[in-house]
Amino acid sequence: MTKSIAMFVAAAAVMIPVTLGFRAQENEATAYPGGYRSWTHIKSGLVGPGSPAYPEYGGIYSVYANEKAMEGYRTRVFPDGSVIVFDVLEAKETKGTTTGEARKFIDVMIKDSRRFAQSDGWGYEKFRGDNQTERALTAKARTDCHSCHTSQKDRGYVFSSFRP
Amino acid sequence: MTKSIAMFVAAAAVMIPVTLGFRAQENEATAYPGGYRSWTHIKSGLVGPGSPAYPEYGGIYSVYANEKAMEGYRTRVFPDGSVIVFDVLEAKETKGTTTGEARKFIDVMIKDSRRFAQSDGWGYEKFRGDNQTERALTAKARTDCHSCHTSQKDRGYVFSSFRP
Repeated sequence: MTKSIAMFVAAAAVMIPVTLGFRAQENEATAYPGGYRSWTHIKSGLVGPGSPAYPEYGGIYSVYANEKAMEGYRTRVFPDGSVIVFDVLEAKETKGTTTGEARKFIDVMIKDSRRFAQSDGWGYEKFRGDNQTERALTAKARTDCHSCHTSQKDRGYVFSSFRP
Repeated sequence: MTKSIAMFVAAAAVMIPVTLGFRAQENEATAYPGGYRSWTHIKSGLVGPGSPAYPEYGGIYSVYANEKAMEGYRTRVFPDGSVIVFDVLEAKETKGTTTGEARKFIDVMIKDSRRFAQSDGWGYEKFRGDNQTERALTAKARTDCHSCHTSQKDRGYVFSSFRP
């Protein structure tokens, strides 16, 4: 009994830090990008009904980049810590002017060469509405994200360019 | 002759500082807002052919605010030094997605209670294309700007709101 407890404690001493370490790492890597609305605005546009992306991406979109990602937009080599947010709002047209209303979701790209080594250093996540905690992507969806972004390998796997 | 020269010098001593002072003040007040693309992005949208504003404002627009103007967006009292930029790009639609191309112009609002006392503290300017030196507005156009913005008196004379 004493031996069992000792073994349990010993095992726990190894496992708890490993588990906490993994969780901390995961939270850090795919956390909601708080404060991104103050980051640099890369560009905006409108995805309309004529786009094949409309069912999911229809609306007014804006792309934001943190400081490290801005270095990537300049050099097309995105350093670890780069975060890019693709922010999609419901579109509403009034008298010929289309504006953004409620948030549909944000897509997030995070560069971490170690954690996301299998996808060339990029991690992907989606937060629907204004929810900052529920990660909406399945493992397969994340793989699909990167499959598409691989077409932009020569541009650091990022589609957009900074519009000066 | 000596007296004339003395009078000329005396007059110049008064006039030159006044002239330089006025120019410096004017340049400071309506200078091109360098670096505004790094300011906070307030919102974006599309002015389409169905809008009465289309002939001048048709395109993808984005609004940017400097730090002082951000205080104004929070309180609807815009402190002196607030600068707001309304940036309009030519719209181009490709497969249902509309993006911004060449810059049509930027409209600029600057808050300076002293210099623009006659228009409730707001000065207005327009820079066409990427031109950073030629001010495109006539005195009448500036008055027209403010006549319209007066409808937003209770909101600090500013139409837009920050879209969190």
